[in-house]
Amino acid sequence: MRELIVNLGERSYPICIGSELLSSGKIFSDLIKSSQIMIVTNTTVAALYLERLTGSLGKFNPVSVVIPDGEAYKTLETMNNIITNLLDNRFSRDCCLIALGGGVVGDITGFAAACYQRGVSFIQIPTTLLAQVDASVGGKTGVNHPLGKNMIGAFHQPAGVVIDISVLDTLSDREMSAGLAEIIKYGLIRDEEFFAWLEKNIGALLERDRNCLIHAVERSCRNKAEVVSMDEREGGIRAILNLGHTFGHAIETKLNYKKWLHGEAVATGMLMAAELSCRMNWLDKETVQRIKLLLEKANLPVKLPASLNGDGLMDTMVIDKKSRQGRMRLVLLKGIGEACVTADYDHDALQKVLDTFPRESDSH
Amino acid sequence: MRELIVNLGERSYPICIGSELLSSGKIFSDLIKSSQIMIVTNTTVAALYLERLTGSLGKFNPVSVVIPDGEAYKTLETMNNIITNLLDNRFSRDCCLIALGGGVVGDITGFAAACYQRGVSFIQIPTTLLAQVDASVGGKTGVNHPLGKNMIGAFHQPAGVVIDISVLDTLSDREMSAGLAEIIKYGLIRDEEFFAWLEKNIGALLERDRNCLIHAVERSCRNKAEVVSMDEREGGIRAILNLGHTFGHAIETKLNYKKWLHGEAVATGMLMAAELSCRMNWLDKETVQRIKLLLEKANLPVKLPASLNGDGLMDTMVIDKKSRQGRMRLVLLKGIGEACVTADYDHDALQKVLDTFPRESDSH
Repeated sequence: MRELIVNLGERSYPICIGSELLSSGKIFSDLIKSSQIMIVTNTTVAALYLERLTGSLGKFNPVSVVIPDGEAYKTLETMNNIITNLLDNRFSRDCCLIALGGGVVGDITGFAAACYQRGVSFIQIPTTLLAQVDASVGGKTGVNHPLGKNMIGAFHQPAGVVIDISVLDTLSDREMSAGLAEIIKYGLIRDEEFFAWLEKNIGALLERDRNCLIHAVERSCRNKAEVVSMDEREGGIRAILNLGHTFGHAIETKLNYKKWLHGEAVATGMLMAAELSCRMNWLDKETVQRIKLLLEKANLPVKLPASLNGDGLMDTMVIDKKSRQGRMRLVLLKGIGEACVTADYDHDALQKVLDTFPRESDSH
Repeated sequence: MRELIVNLGERSYPICIGSELLSSGKIFSDLIKSSQIMIVTNTTVAALYLERLTGSLGKFNPVSVVIPDGEAYKTLETMNNIITNLLDNRFSRDCCLIALGGGVVGDITGFAAACYQRGVSFIQIPTTLLAQVDASVGGKTGVNHPLGKNMIGAFHQPAGVVIDISVLDTLSDREMSAGLAEIIKYGLIRDEEFFAWLEKNIGALLERDRNCLIHAVERSCRNKAEVVSMDEREGGIRAILNLGHTFGHAIETKLNYKKWLHGEAVATGMLMAAELSCRMNWLDKETVQRIKLLLEKANLPVKLPASLNGDGLMDTMVIDKKSRQGRMRLVLLKGIGEACVTADYDHDALQKVLDTFPRESDSH
C-alpha cells in the first residue's frame, strides 16, 4: 500500500492507495476516530461493494444510506435525506461519514458532512478512476441546483481517502478512459516525465494492470495535492487544474450533459486548448500530435460532436465568462508539463479553433 | 461611530456600531468590495427599513429578496430560494449578500453565502438587540431541520457587521429584554465591571438611551469577540458563551419553542446555573440575589413556567447529553465575571435545583 499526505496544515490528510483495501479492517481502524459511522453509497455500488466494506467496519457497527445512482440525484433533497438519517440515528458532532462511490456520492456526502452540525468528519472511498484521481484531492463538495451545476457547496477536507484499485475491475471501459483523461491532464499541466510514462504504459492501464494503475493514481493525486496545497480555496495557481475544462464545459452544455462523459469532454477540450496554444505559437504541431495520439490510444474522443458549431460553442463560453464578470481566462500550454492561465489569448485564434476543430462526421 | 475588529487572522472583520448607520452610504462603500449586491430581509423588517438601506446602497443597484418572517421559515427551502435568486440574477463568486434582520435572517443569509459557489461574501445588519450582541460575532450560520434546530449549517465569517442602534426604536419591549439577557450574560461570564455598569444603567437601556445602548452592545460584542478569537470552531473555552443555555434549551424544548423567547429562557437558565453554583458552594446567596435582581429589573422571567416539573427538565437535559455522547457539561459560576465549564457538577444538587426552582404560579 502507498500512502500520500495531502499537506493542508491542520487539515492535512492521508490518501491510501493499493489493492483489496476495502477488505482491510486495519486501514479503517487507523483512520476512524469516531464510534458513530454512516456509509453513504448508491444502488449500483452498494450491490457490488457495500457488504465487503461493512464487513471490514464490523466493530464500528456502521449505518448505511443508499441513494439512487446518477447525477440527477446530486441535489439538496438527497443531502437533506442524509441529514435526516443522521438525526434519526442520533449522530453527534463526533460522527464520521464514509462516501463509497464515484464523484456524485463523494460530493453529496462531503457536503452533508460539511453542513451537519456545522461540520463533521468524512472519509472518501472513490470507486471510479475519475473520482480516485480528481475528487479525492481538493476538498470540493456540493450539489447541483436546477439552474447550475455545483452551485451549492463547501470546501471541506476529508479525514482520509482510501483508494482501492481492485474496485476498478467492475468499471466499464468507457469510464476507465474518462478517468484516464484526467490522468493525462496531470502530465500535460506539470509533469512531462509522467506524460512520457503514460505514453509507454497506456496499454497496460487500459488492461487494468494493478501496479500501473497504482502508480498512475498515486502520481496524479500527488500532482493535484501539490497544486491544491499551494492554493486551497482556488484563488490562483489551482486554475491550471482546469485545463480542457472551459472547452469541455461548453461541449457538455451544448450536449445538455448527455451523450459524453465529463472525462471525454475534457479530453477533447484539452486537445482544443493545445490547438489554440499552437495557433498562438506557444506549442509546435508535433507536440499537439503527440497529445492527440495519447488521447486516441486511451480511447478518448479527439473530434467534436458533429452537431456543435463554432459560434454556439463561443456563445456558451462567453455566457460563462459574463457570469464570472470579467475577461475569460483560459488554461493553455507552453509545452508538455507546462500549463499557464491567461486572459491574453488570441480571440481570433480561439474563434478559428472553435470553427475548424475536426467534427465526428468528418472524414479525416 | 465605534468600530471594533473581530480578530480571526485572515477572516478578521469590523463591527461598526452607532446611530443612523443605515442611512450612511459611506459605511457601505467602505465595506463592500463587490458590484453585485443582494439584500435578504423579511417582510416585517422590509416594511420598516428596506427602503432606507437601498437608498444608501443606491450606487450598487442592489437586488432584494424578502422572505417570510419567523423561525418556521429558517429552512433549507428558504436557503434554496435565495440561491435561486442569486442564479436568476447571474451573481458571480465575487458577489456580496447583506442580511438585514434578526437572527433568523442572519443565519439563513449567512448559510446561503457560505454555500453559494462554495462561499461568497456577506455583511450582517442585525436589527434586534439579541442579534446585535449574539449573532453578529461568531460566524455560526445555518438552518433548522424538522428533527433539530440549527442542524444544517456552516461556520462562515461575515466581511463586516453594521449595527445601527436606531433600528431598536421599533423593537418591542419584550424583545429588548430578551436581548438584555444575552448582554447580562457577558457580564456574568467574564466582565464583572460591565455587570456593575449594567446594574446602574439597566433603566436607561430599557428606555433605549442610545449612548447607553451603544456602550452595552459594543462591550458585549467585544467580550464575545475575545472568546471567539480564542476558539473559532467551538472546541473549548467558547462553551462559556452557553451560560444558561443548557437549562434554557430544556425550558424551550418543554414549551415546544413557544410562549418564551430564547432570551427569556436563557435568563431563567442563567439564574438556575447560579442557583446550582450556590448549592455547590461556588457562589454565595447574596450574589445569586444580585443576579436575580438585575434580571428582574430587565423585565426577564426569574421563575419557571408552572407546567414544567423537575423530572421532565432532567430528562430533556439527559437526552441532549446522550445525543452528544458523553457526560453533560454545564457552565457554572464561581463569581460574577467568572464562568467555568464543568462535567463535575453535583448531580443531586442539579436535581434539587430542577425540582425546587420557583414556578410562575408560586406565591413568592
